[in-house]
Amino acid sequence: MDILVSLDENYMRQLCVMLTSVYLNNPGCGCSIYLIHRGIPEKKLALLSSSLERLGYLLYPVLIDEKLFSSAPVMKQYPQEMYYRLLASKLLPKELKKILYLDPDVLVANSLERLWNLDISNYLFAAAAHTGKTELANNINRIRLKTENDYFNSGVLLINLELCRKEIDPEEIFSYVREHSSSLLLPDQDVLNALYWDRIRKIDDFIWNYDARNYSSYLLRSFGRADTAWVMSHTAVFHFCGKAKPWKEHYSYRFGVLYRHYMQLSKNYFPSLTF
Amino acid sequence: MDILVSLDENYMRQLCVMLTSVYLNNPGCGCSIYLIHRGIPEKKLALLSSSLERLGYLLYPVLIDEKLFSSAPVMKQYPQEMYYRLLASKLLPKELKKILYLDPDVLVANSLERLWNLDISNYLFAAAAHTGKTELANNINRIRLKTENDYFNSGVLLINLELCRKEIDPEEIFSYVREHSSSLLLPDQDVLNALYWDRIRKIDDFIWNYDARNYSSYLLRSFGRADTAWVMSHTAVFHFCGKAKPWKEHYSYRFGVLYRHYMQLSKNYFPSLTF
Repeated sequence: MDILVSLDENYMRQLCVMLTSVYLNNPGCGCSIYLIHRGIPEKKLALLSSSLERLGYLLYPVLIDEKLFSSAPVMKQYPQEMYYRLLASKLLPKELKKILYLDPDVLVANSLERLWNLDISNYLFAAAAHTGKTELANNINRIRLKTENDYFNSGVLLINLELCRKEIDPEEIFSYVREHSSSLLLPDQDVLNALYWDRIRKIDDFIWNYDARNYSSYLLRSFGRADTAWVMSHTAVFHFCGKAKPWKEHYSYRFGVLYRHYMQLSKNYFPSLTF
Repeated sequence: MDILVSLDENYMRQLCVMLTSVYLNNPGCGCSIYLIHRGIPEKKLALLSSSLERLGYLLYPVLIDEKLFSSAPVMKQYPQEMYYRLLASKLLPKELKKILYLDPDVLVANSLERLWNLDISNYLFAAAAHTGKTELANNINRIRLKTENDYFNSGVLLINLELCRKEIDPEEIFSYVREHSSSLLLPDQDVLNALYWDRIRKIDDFIWNYDARNYSSYLLRSFGRADTAWVMSHTAVFHFCGKAKPWKEHYSYRFGVLYRHYMQLSKNYFPSLTF
């Protein structure tokens, strides 16, 4: 399985927690981790790489080619990094046909195999929409971005790199951002939805992108079926999206316990990095 | 580390969950598991053994010598099994000097090393008292059992087998049970407290025997210090004691999420046994 992450030095700890969860829930799967970055120190990358090697994983750091972004509009709150997942096909080795992008604030708690093997040969991406509690937000986003469909979350993306290489034009993305800079709230996600909403295969957010804040809403939507027992045996990716983060103090949502436990476990697998 | 468990066939799944948690939270520790039983089928023991071998663990099944219990009083609700942990010194190989007994309804979430290395050379056991919310129950137990001290929980016991061999007399235990059979509530625990309360080294229940039902009470007792983050980075043994069990439906306490996740993880390590 090939996994894509994109982050700066400050998110190395979260990356280790996330990779620990990938490792423990996907036994026997030798993953390659592609890490797009702008300048994480060599020493840290070497430590990460050697920890990963002990798990049978390989690290491929991809240092950004700044030239590609020479004409990219960059805003204060939303730096250049926001483009990386959308432009993964331009940044990653040509021989890669697909890749699974994961935000550093996700936690894996069941096998990713079915997602990795999902047929997206006719799509650019597979992604989940956060429905439920955010239905109102979805409606607003539909109007705001003039899409007719769900508002997809960009935290978990299966990317068809082969097709993206043909269909995605960086300049189209940059000019969309330039023209709509005043109304973009979550730029990478907004661009994904505005430009590519009809090229996305929808996946189940209960399984692949479970908004960890919304237990009650998932329970309601499922008519009581998605209780803790169900979630723990089905949900493969918890997404700790939003402002409250489970690695910060006073996080109160239900699945924070699980995240905190993986913070502990990660010390066994990344002894030199997590602290 | 040498671990003692005692259970019947119906608790094999819980055993696998517990051992998965021991394994993942004690990396590099090759454990020996002593399993005292009365007749778990050979085939199941062989499956357990081969799964454990793949983890670098060894299984030593100990089939009970019924003769030892010929004079033991046995009550309906409390079968012969209740004596095993107290009489471990008579049941286990002579060369073992100490052992860590764990109930099948515990979950390990941090390293057991400090407990295993605890000096109990002058004690028969190390055990924790469930204080806090159960202070009233403790007082009642003190009066009922005429001990002057805490009421110790017998779910996590570090046992000094060398000293127990010299000091523990099975007949003393059997006659205590015979004489008090009408007032015993939790026989093994009551006997532990009534006969050996002054031979027990007290350990911290926050760390070594955390009553998973009582998060709020622990939080109060610690003046707010033992919040989820603290618990997840310090508590080594969660004890899911009481009637509500995290493997049953509708378990609502906070740490049920963690137990359920280990039920999933255990499938990777005990594929032929957990279901």
